[in-house]
Amino acid sequence: MRLTRNQRKANLPRGDMPGPLTLAQIVSRLGGRVVGEAATLIRQVGTLERAGSDQISFLANPRYRAKLEATQAAAVVLAPGAEAFTGRPRIVCDNPYAYFARVSQLLNPAPIPAPGVDPAATVASRARVPASARVEAGATLEDDVELGERVWIGAGCHLGRGTRIGEDSRLFPSVVIYHGCRIGARAVIHSGAVIGADGFGIAPEAGRWIKIPQIGGVVIGDDVEVGANTTIDRGAIEDTVIEDGVKLDNQIQIGHNVHIGAHTAIAACAGIAGSAAIGKHCAIGGGALIAGHMSIADHVTVSAATVVTHPLRAAGTYTGFFPMDNHASWARNAVLVRHLAELSDRIRELEKHIQGKKDNA
Amino acid sequence: MRLTRNQRKANLPRGDMPGPLTLAQIVSRLGGRVVGEAATLIRQVGTLERAGSDQISFLANPRYRAKLEATQAAAVVLAPGAEAFTGRPRIVCDNPYAYFARVSQLLNPAPIPAPGVDPAATVASRARVPASARVEAGATLEDDVELGERVWIGAGCHLGRGTRIGEDSRLFPSVVIYHGCRIGARAVIHSGAVIGADGFGIAPEAGRWIKIPQIGGVVIGDDVEVGANTTIDRGAIEDTVIEDGVKLDNQIQIGHNVHIGAHTAIAACAGIAGSAAIGKHCAIGGGALIAGHMSIADHVTVSAATVVTHPLRAAGTYTGFFPMDNHASWARNAVLVRHLAELSDRIRELEKHIQGKKDNA
Amino acid sequence: MRLTRNQRKANLPRGDMPGPLTLAQIVSRLGGRVVGEAATLIRQVGTLERAGSDQISFLANPRYRAKLEATQAAAVVLAPGAEAFTGRPRIVCDNPYAYFARVSQLLNPAPIPAPGVDPAATVASRARVPASARVEAGATLEDDVELGERVWIGAGCHLGRGTRIGEDSRLFPSVVIYHGCRIGARAVIHSGAVIGADGFGIAPEAGRWIKIPQIGGVVIGDDVEVGANTTIDRGAIEDTVIEDGVKLDNQIQIGHNVHIGAHTAIAACAGIAGSAAIGKHCAIGGGALIAGHMSIADHVTVSAATVVTHPLRAAGTYTGFFPMDNHASWARNAVLVRHLAELSDRIRELEKHIQGKKDNA
Repeated sequence: MRLTRNQRKANLPRGDMPGPLTLAQIVSRLGGRVVGEAATLIRQVGTLERAGSDQISFLANPRYRAKLEATQAAAVVLAPGAEAFTGRPRIVCDNPYAYFARVSQLLNPAPIPAPGVDPAATVASRARVPASARVEAGATLEDDVELGERVWIGAGCHLGRGTRIGEDSRLFPSVVIYHGCRIGARAVIHSGAVIGADGFGIAPEAGRWIKIPQIGGVVIGDDVEVGANTTIDRGAIEDTVIEDGVKLDNQIQIGHNVHIGAHTAIAACAGIAGSAAIGKHCAIGGGALIAGHMSIADHVTVSAATVVTHPLRAAGTYTGFFPMDNHASWARNAVLVRHLAELSDRIRELEKHIQGKKDNA
Repeated sequence: MRLTRNQRKANLPRGDMPGPLTLAQIVSRLGGRVVGEAATLIRQVGTLERAGSDQISFLANPRYRAKLEATQAAAVVLAPGAEAFTGRPRIVCDNPYAYFARVSQLLNPAPIPAPGVDPAATVASRARVPASARVEAGATLEDDVELGERVWIGAGCHLGRGTRIGEDSRLFPSVVIYHGCRIGARAVIHSGAVIGADGFGIAPEAGRWIKIPQIGGVVIGDDVEVGANTTIDRGAIEDTVIEDGVKLDNQIQIGHNVHIGAHTAIAACAGIAGSAAIGKHCAIGGGALIAGHMSIADHVTVSAATVVTHPLRAAGTYTGFFPMDNHASWARNAVLVRHLAELSDRIRELEKHIQGKKDNA
Repeated sequence: MRLTRNQRKANLPRGDMPGPLTLAQIVSRLGGRVVGEAATLIRQVGTLERAGSDQISFLANPRYRAKLEATQAAAVVLAPGAEAFTGRPRIVCDNPYAYFARVSQLLNPAPIPAPGVDPAATVASRARVPASARVEAGATLEDDVELGERVWIGAGCHLGRGTRIGEDSRLFPSVVIYHGCRIGARAVIHSGAVIGADGFGIAPEAGRWIKIPQIGGVVIGDDVEVGANTTIDRGAIEDTVIEDGVKLDNQIQIGHNVHIGAHTAIAACAGIAGSAAIGKHCAIGGGALIAGHMSIADHVTVSAATVVTHPLRAAGTYTGFFPMDNHASWARNAVLVRHLAELSDRIRELEKHIQGKKDNA
C-alpha cells in the first residue's frame, strides 16, 4: 500500500465543517490582535511545515523560528515577542498554544449527536434516556441508568445498573461502566476504557486469597477525558474519585480508592496503585508508577517512567529512571550499580588511610 | 459537579442485600470470639475513619491504632494482641484482614444471575448453555462453546469456538475468549480482558517477519480472577497455563506459553514475557516485567517496577528500580551512573597508589 | 480442575485441517533438503520435548542440542552445521526458525472466512462490503466504510465513518477503528485494539486544559499485525503512520503522529509517545518507553524496559534498566545511587590530595 500524507480532507469526515473564518472573525471571538491582512480566510489548522494557503499554524516555542520563517501557512498565531519573526498575517496573543487550540475548536467543532436510540441497542425499562441523547447499536443500558441531555453512547458500550452520565458527555464505542458509577458533564471517554471494575482486594489466608467485595463506586467530575483502554477501579469500601478537569491518556491503570485532584493530567501507561492521593494541577509522565497509599501534593510533576515510593509533599519535579546507554556501556556500569556499597566502603577506606597519614604527619 | 462521599447505598444496588447480622451470628458462621455486646447489629463494612453505627471495621496493622481509638464503628475485627486497644464491641481472631473479607462476603454476597439467554445474544446452534446460565445482550457464543452451571456471560462478550467455562464463573461485559480456551470454575473475568489471542511469534527472514501460527490454547484453573483489560495469549505450540487460585489485576500482559503456579497474585501493569514459568504462591508487583523463559521459584516476591532478567531460584524478595529524587539531584547522579566503570577504575588507581606507597614504606 | 497438556487436537478446531504432508512434499514447496526417510508423514508441528511420531520440530539454537538428541519428533528442521546432531529424518536449510514457521503455516493455514453479513450486525447503507467479506454479529459499520475482498470483521467490532480496510485483513472480535482510518491488506488486528482514538493533545491555560481537536488519522500499511488491547492514536493535525510489515504485540500504546518504519517489531507493553519517529527494521523490547519527538534510526534495538530520552542516530542496541537484586542488596545500593555525585567528589578529593603529594615529592 502506498502511504500518502494529508488525506485528511478526504477520509476524515467530521460532520458539518463550519465555513471559513477571517482572522478578524477569529479575534472577534477569541481575542488577540491581528497583524497584517485581517481578511485572510482560514479553513483549517496546520503545522508550520505543511500548512497551505488556507491554513493557520502557530509558534509556541522560539526554537522553531526557522520553521516559522519557511512556512507557507496563510497565517500564524504567536506571542508578542515573536511578532517580528514573520511578515505573514498573524494573530498576536499571550498563550499561542492555547489560542491555537481554541481556533482549532472553532474550525473543528465536536460533532453533535443525532438523537435517538438505535433499534439494535438494549435499554432496560427503568433506564432514563432523554430525547436529546443518542444510544448506538449494540449498547446495553441496565436499569436505573440515567443519561443527561445530549449524552452520546457509542456502539457496544455497556452501562451497568444505576450508572449516571452527565450532560454532553460522549462515550466512544466499547466503553464499559460498571454498576453505580457516576460521571460528570462533558466527559469524553474513549473506546475500551473500563470504569468501575473491582479493585484488586484480596486477603491472604493459609496460602490462598480471599476476595474482598469491592462495594465502593467511581465518581468522576465534570470535563474529564479518559483515554482508550484506561481502567479505573471502583473503591473497596468508599469511592474512587476523579475530580473536575482531569485528563487521562490511554492505558492508564487507576486502582481502588485513588483520589485525583482537579486539572491533573496523566500520560499514557501510568499506573496509580490503590489509595494513592494525587493533588490538583499535577502532571504525571508516561509509564510512571505511583505506589499504593502515596500522597502527592498539588502542582507536582512526576517524570515519565518514575516510580514514586515516598510521599511527595512539595511542588516540584521528581524523576527516577535508569539512563539509557549503548548496551555494552550499560552492561559495564549496571554491574557496578550492584556493588555501589562496596565502592563506597573502598572510598571510605582510602579517606581513612589518608586521614591517618595526615594525623601522623 | 459536586462530589459527595459514600453515595454507596443509593447508587450501588447489589441485588438482594441480606438482612443485618449480629456479632453473635457472624462468629457462629466464621469463628472467632466476641468481646462486648454480642447482639450488636451489623449492616455493612466500613473503614475505621468513616464507619457508622451499623458498620464493622477492622484493624490488621497496629500502626493504625490511633484510628481505631477514634473510630465510630459499631464493631471492630482485630487480633488477640489488639483486643485491649478499644472498648467497642469486637471480634477477636487470628487473621483480622481475612476475617473482615469473609464478613464482607456475608454482607455483600456476589449477585446470583437471573438465568436465561437474552434475545439480543447470538448463540450458535452447537453451543451448550445450561438452563441455569445467563447470557446477556450482544454476547456471541460460537459452536461447541460449553458453559457450566450458573455461568454468567456479560453483555457483548465473545466466546470463540470450543471454549469451555466452568460452573459459577462470571464474565463481565466485553470479555473476549478466543477459540478453544478452557476456564475453570468460579472464575471472575473483568471487562476488556482478552484471553487466547495469538502470542507474539514471528521469525525473521530477509528483513521481514514470518508469522508462526499460534496453535496452543489457554488453560485456566479454578478460582482465578482476571482484571480489566488484561491479556493472556494462547500458546505457540503447547498451552499457556494459569493454575488454580491465581489472581491477576488489571492491564497485565501474559505471553504465550507462560505458566503461572497456583495462588500466585500479580498486580496491575505487570508484563510476563513468553515461556516464563512463575512458581506457586508468588507475588509480582505492579509494572514488573519478567523476561522470556525466566523461571521463578515458589514463594518469590518481585517488587513493583522490577525487571527480572535472571532466573530466581530461591524464595525471597527481589527488587530493581531506580530510586526517585528531585529532578536536579536525579540528573546530577544519573549522569554518573553512566560513568560508574570509570569511577571504579579511579578508585582502583588510588588503591594501587597507596598500596605502592605502603610497599615502598 | 485438572490441567492436562496438549488438549490441542480436541479443543482447538481450526477449520479444515489439511492432510498430512511428507518431508518430500514439504521441501518441494519450501525448499531445503531432506536427509533420511523422505516419505515420513508429518501432521503437525511440535516442540523438541513433546513432539510425537507425526510431528516435526526444529533446532535453531545449538544450545538445545541435548533436547534434539532426546527428541521423539518424527522429523526435525535444522541448519547445515547441525545436520549430524541427530539421525532422525530431517530437513536441512539455512534459516530453520523461519522454515519451521512456514511449515507450520502449511499445516495450520489461517481459516478462510465464510462470507456474509450476520443479521445481528449493523451496517450503514453507505458502507461498501464485498460479497466475499464476513461481518459477524454485533459489528457496527458506519457510512463510507470500505472493506476489501475477503475482509473478516469479528463480532462486536466497530468501524467508524470512512474507514478503509484492505483485502484479506482480519479483525478479531471487539476491535474499534475510529472514523477515517486506513488499514492495508492482510492486516491481523487482535481483540480490544483501538485504532484512531484521540491523541493526548491538551494545552494549558490558567490552570485548566484546553482540548486540541485531533484531526489527523491513522494510516497503516500492508501486512501489519496489531496485538490485543494495543492502542494507536490518530494524529493531531497530520496522520499517525505505521508502515508495511510492522508487528505490534499486545498492550502497546502509540501516541499521535508517531511514525513507525517498515518491518519494525515492538514487544508488549511498550509505549511510544507522540511524534516519535522509529526507523525501519527496529526491534523495541517489552515495556520500553520512547519519549515524544524522539527519532530512532533504522536497525536499532531497544532493550526491554529501557527509556529512550535521546535520539538514537546509529544502528545498535541500547539499554537502560536498573539491574534486579535481592531486596536488601538493592536497598543498600539504591541509597547510594542518590549520592553518586558526592562519591564522585570524594574520589576527586582523594586524587587531588595524592596529586598534591606527588607535586610536593
